[in-house]
Amino acid sequence: MEKINNFLFSGKSCGLKKNGDLDVGLMVSEIPLRVSAVFTRNKIKAAPVIISKKHSKNIIKALIVNSGNANACNGKYGILDAKKVLESVSMETGAAQGNIFICSTGVIGERLNAPLIEKAVPELVKAADKGGFRDFAKSIMTTDTFFKIASKDVVLGGVKHSIIGTAKGSGMIMPNMATMLAFIFSDIPLEKETADEMFKDCVETSFNSITVDGDTSTNDTAAFFYPDAAKHPIKKTDAGYGAVKNALSEVCFELAKMIVKDGEGATKFIKITVMNAYTESGAKKIALTVANSPLFKTMITGEDLNWGRIMAAVGRSSVPLKPEKIDIYINDKLIVQNSAVSKGLSKAEEKTVLSPKEIDFKIDLKCGKKKRSVLTCNLTKKYIDINASYRS
Amino acid sequence: MEKINNFLFSGKSCGLKKNGDLDVGLMVSEIPLRVSAVFTRNKIKAAPVIISKKHSKNIIKALIVNSGNANACNGKYGILDAKKVLESVSMETGAAQGNIFICSTGVIGERLNAPLIEKAVPELVKAADKGGFRDFAKSIMTTDTFFKIASKDVVLGGVKHSIIGTAKGSGMIMPNMATMLAFIFSDIPLEKETADEMFKDCVETSFNSITVDGDTSTNDTAAFFYPDAAKHPIKKTDAGYGAVKNALSEVCFELAKMIVKDGEGATKFIKITVMNAYTESGAKKIALTVANSPLFKTMITGEDLNWGRIMAAVGRSSVPLKPEKIDIYINDKLIVQNSAVSKGLSKAEEKTVLSPKEIDFKIDLKCGKKKRSVLTCNLTKKYIDINASYRS
Repeated sequence: MEKINNFLFSGKSCGLKKNGDLDVGLMVSEIPLRVSAVFTRNKIKAAPVIISKKHSKNIIKALIVNSGNANACNGKYGILDAKKVLESVSMETGAAQGNIFICSTGVIGERLNAPLIEKAVPELVKAADKGGFRDFAKSIMTTDTFFKIASKDVVLGGVKHSIIGTAKGSGMIMPNMATMLAFIFSDIPLEKETADEMFKDCVETSFNSITVDGDTSTNDTAAFFYPDAAKHPIKKTDAGYGAVKNALSEVCFELAKMIVKDGEGATKFIKITVMNAYTESGAKKIALTVANSPLFKTMITGEDLNWGRIMAAVGRSSVPLKPEKIDIYINDKLIVQNSAVSKGLSKAEEKTVLSPKEIDFKIDLKCGKKKRSVLTCNLTKKYIDINASYRS
Repeated sequence: MEKINNFLFSGKSCGLKKNGDLDVGLMVSEIPLRVSAVFTRNKIKAAPVIISKKHSKNIIKALIVNSGNANACNGKYGILDAKKVLESVSMETGAAQGNIFICSTGVIGERLNAPLIEKAVPELVKAADKGGFRDFAKSIMTTDTFFKIASKDVVLGGVKHSIIGTAKGSGMIMPNMATMLAFIFSDIPLEKETADEMFKDCVETSFNSITVDGDTSTNDTAAFFYPDAAKHPIKKTDAGYGAVKNALSEVCFELAKMIVKDGEGATKFIKITVMNAYTESGAKKIALTVANSPLFKTMITGEDLNWGRIMAAVGRSSVPLKPEKIDIYINDKLIVQNSAVSKGLSKAEEKTVLSPKEIDFKIDLKCGKKKRSVLTCNLTKKYIDINASYRS
């Protein structure tokens, strides 16, 4: 079981989800925490995003999250209802409202039934326990089909420390946050500035390098909580810095991978690496253009090697490249050489190359030396089933 | 029947399509023509695009088009095979190769079976006739479920002139051309520079304002053919200019609309207008972000008014706006007022507002005075059926 010093977790069903699933989660800390957080870049932000952005500068003592309602696009009621929730958590935990981090995920534009949460808060606080992480992880799920947990230990000066995290998807997934929430907790004291930078780097290659459907929501938040280090925090120049960053990066990447694997209706897990590009941002742009192409995604579903669709997506990304020089590898098999079909590709291989559950695409631009990978999944009829009737 | 002075058309089956459908079309002109053309902005361009771009500066005497194969991403064979086709058309019509416009559409990355076309060219030339426009229109179809023709008459100085056009979709449709071909023909003599500008304007508000799936192909071409006006062409300052431009614009718009209506798997026709934006380009960007959102498209399929998805798409388009001021109308019914649900919306209306086959969305930003519309369709399981096995 995932446990971590000084962090207590719980999760309950308060009635926001009609089916009785867990829909509200709490973390309370026995010690003052700091948080490094990354929020949606969507111009339309949910009320809890606006509040937590402000609170993220303060000491943090608790985190309250609900699923089943995004508390976005509710006009003046958004902030009002979020404050009601904060007030009840403050009452029960003793933490000031400014020391509480709050998130919501679910349907946009329906007023949050705050009284349901308020009623559940006393129970949540009472139940909060070192062993409650799974309940917390379950309480943030929406269309996710499994709860997502990753953890990693780090030994610093002979003492074992932990980083544990949970995240939820699974539609509206796209860089710069999606309808995604990710919470990572560590017992390693860190200086906020150092941790902010560290976490931003880790998010860039994990949560910001995945896409399910290209949509970005109003609520997305990734937050990393750790003890406030008044004395002796780990700084960038310290020996332990690299080890902590690696562990944090691995936890973020594991969670990001799980989000893609649980993409709505997905049956295939796809990694797209664009290599030898002129710039890293160009490599990422091409990889995302391919990853978000419905024609690419449906080709994977049909296991029909129509590689021209990859070429078309690469070409329309408007990234500088040499149109006649592109090589494409699928699971390390050369498929396209110099922008035309590879002579070594047999009819039999053509039929089976897209059969595996996990498919690795390498697009070699042979232009520069930069490289980036993104993770994505295929597009199936189930995605349409799920999203044609999400509210019903 | 669509006929036009001096233009002869034909369409045949040469065997590129395995099912015996028409797959090669020809236009030959009895008089020298000019062409104004707009090509894909995809960096990876099919061989016929490269050739026709060059030839579009010349006098045009003939147009040869094939469906069933895009002749894209075939390395050195692309130009070679296209030239074989040009040579046979040149032989049979007497037009120099440089006076022939050539287009291809279909699967990318499979070598064009040029001998099949070469064999059909004599028959095509023999069959070319004023009454052959429908065969020509049919010969350019790929996954289209119906052939697309639009026409408009213009009276200039008491003489009746015509503009007729045909186009094909119906996946990979996105501004800056898609897997789209559009050919428009007129018997009105025009000066090339004037016509170039006129056609560019017409394309911007028609073919460049539609989207089916956000994909853009390697082959897209829209071309407008008209008699070379050595003497007395219509200039921008002439009285007839406005009438010609209006008629051309209407023909382009009609064809664009048909492409969207025939979007792969589409069952709903959607118009999205973004109004009172700061800039026209911003309005278009928002409209396209909404139009291409899979969550928006599946919501339409499910007739489930989850308007938060529209808000989320508007917000992630990164266009400057006032997040608290957005109004949304669906078929003129106010749904969202100041970024929250409209009080006037009843439960009954909520259930039926997405029922019509044609749905008109107005997104009022209440920021500036600029406006743009785009046309799109919904995303259904049939899109996935069509595209998971396009080649088989």
